[in-house]
Amino acid sequence: MTITQHQQRASAWFRELRDSICAGLEEIEKEYCHPECSEGSPAAGDPSPLAQDDNPTFTRTPWSRAEGGGGEMSVLKGLVFEKGGVNISTVHGEFSEQFRREIPGASENPHFWASGISLVIHPRSPLVPAVHLNTRFICTNKTWFGGGMDLTPITPDEEDTEFFHAAIKHTCDKHDTAYYPKFKHACDEYFFLKHRNEPRGIGGIFYDYLNTGDWEKDFAFTQDVGRAFLEAYAPLVRKHLHEPWTEEQRAHQLVRRGRYVEFNLLYDRGTRFGLMTGGNTEAILMSLPPEVRWG
Amino acid sequence: MTITQHQQRASAWFRELRDSICAGLEEIEKEYCHPECSEGSPAAGDPSPLAQDDNPTFTRTPWSRAEGGGGEMSVLKGLVFEKGGVNISTVHGEFSEQFRREIPGASENPHFWASGISLVIHPRSPLVPAVHLNTRFICTNKTWFGGGMDLTPITPDEEDTEFFHAAIKHTCDKHDTAYYPKFKHACDEYFFLKHRNEPRGIGGIFYDYLNTGDWEKDFAFTQDVGRAFLEAYAPLVRKHLHEPWTEEQRAHQLVRRGRYVEFNLLYDRGTRFGLMTGGNTEAILMSLPPEVRWG
Repeated sequence: MTITQHQQRASAWFRELRDSICAGLEEIEKEYCHPECSEGSPAAGDPSPLAQDDNPTFTRTPWSRAEGGGGEMSVLKGLVFEKGGVNISTVHGEFSEQFRREIPGASENPHFWASGISLVIHPRSPLVPAVHLNTRFICTNKTWFGGGMDLTPITPDEEDTEFFHAAIKHTCDKHDTAYYPKFKHACDEYFFLKHRNEPRGIGGIFYDYLNTGDWEKDFAFTQDVGRAFLEAYAPLVRKHLHEPWTEEQRAHQLVRRGRYVEFNLLYDRGTRFGLMTGGNTEAILMSLPPEVRWG
Repeated sequence: MTITQHQQRASAWFRELRDSICAGLEEIEKEYCHPECSEGSPAAGDPSPLAQDDNPTFTRTPWSRAEGGGGEMSVLKGLVFEKGGVNISTVHGEFSEQFRREIPGASENPHFWASGISLVIHPRSPLVPAVHLNTRFICTNKTWFGGGMDLTPITPDEEDTEFFHAAIKHTCDKHDTAYYPKFKHACDEYFFLKHRNEPRGIGGIFYDYLNTGDWEKDFAFTQDVGRAFLEAYAPLVRKHLHEPWTEEQRAHQLVRRGRYVEFNLLYDRGTRFGLMTGGNTEAILMSLPPEVRWG
């Protein structure tokens, strides 16, 4: 199979994954808006200002890049998910002089092709964790997959943490039992706020430059990471969705969201690289929470 | 006069300036809380949640730095000033290997001494502009002054912009008529969000590495920049303080504050350097607005 076929299959997969994740999250919004059709009961004392809306859904906005390629943003402003952003993009071009040194295979040939999906979900309830997923396929003179997902609860819950990690471990172990410990460690290292001396959340997995020499195997793993997202996250949302929360918990959530902003703007490689090199600002900063407080 | 005497006079001045600026801002809070004692009338429909408080004042917190020196944070959470932070610090130590190359005079000798004042004010009303001031005296193998101030209105007002710039120009011109155009230009260049292709606010002045060879002259200029702060800013606060504002204007303010966060975390040299090198996180991030929204 040629590299072009790999690229086509990877970008088609990211689009397919986007569709199924958006549908899965919309399903949760629907259950919440129409509790008569589901098992949950309406949240007691939920101060949601949107409670009059019916069934919030994702709004899609395509964008293109002057240099080549483009993407599609999907944004949900819902009752359950105060702000959810799911981006897919497939772009190509040349790395800047400065960036070439940092990218494997780019020093000899600056051309690149990249496709991926990236999502960040900020739920309204402080009892429902925020979550991030990203998977990508990159081609320079070399090719590789990268990605991962990680959970950011406002107040960590041991049972949730175990569940989330177990779901990811289950997926990793199907491919290689070395993956989970290795990628969990990389996640803990990456999502760490040095200036606060604290982790962003309770971790997950993070992998990069994955090329075992067997493209089908690496692609299958990356697909399974994507499929694991709803399995690992949706049950946590449904578990906490109807729990009443206090203004104090909400205030704490807004402060914790500040840490998310600090991480993304100070450290996140994708965010900083995208913004510094003329990427789509709106799509890149879709990861920022809707409402935030600093003390 | 020895360098030690220069250092003592500079740091004593920054402390004195801190006291007078805090007193000037507290005076405005007092007028607002006790309008019977001043000319203004209470704001119509002001949704301030703190209206029951009497006379908010700055709270001071000293901090020290393991490597040497320390500082004092002053924080005001008021009716007029939703969040105001005024920091002074006097620190010394050695620049890291990585940083030495970027600092004049540090490659031969990594020791530094630095003293300064830094303030950021985020008013509650979207009609009152946010403002930033910083002045500092730095010693490596070389010595210099740096600083400036700039205004960030939520909705720019031509009359305010002219007034603010005129006050600063008046101060600069007393010292050197070349200063204002040069330092205004540097400010416009520095406070620019490349990823948004927009300025942070309506500018002001920004200067760095100021050493004319005449320490007294440079110190006098830096002192006058500090003195100009209340002259340039307080009249704008008093002018807009009692104007009623709408929820729509407030919502716009919260989004514009997001730009302030983006600038400080993505670009601001002081913020990034401080956080990356183990500075006092709380003091450094005091510049971040209290409440922020991203769309």
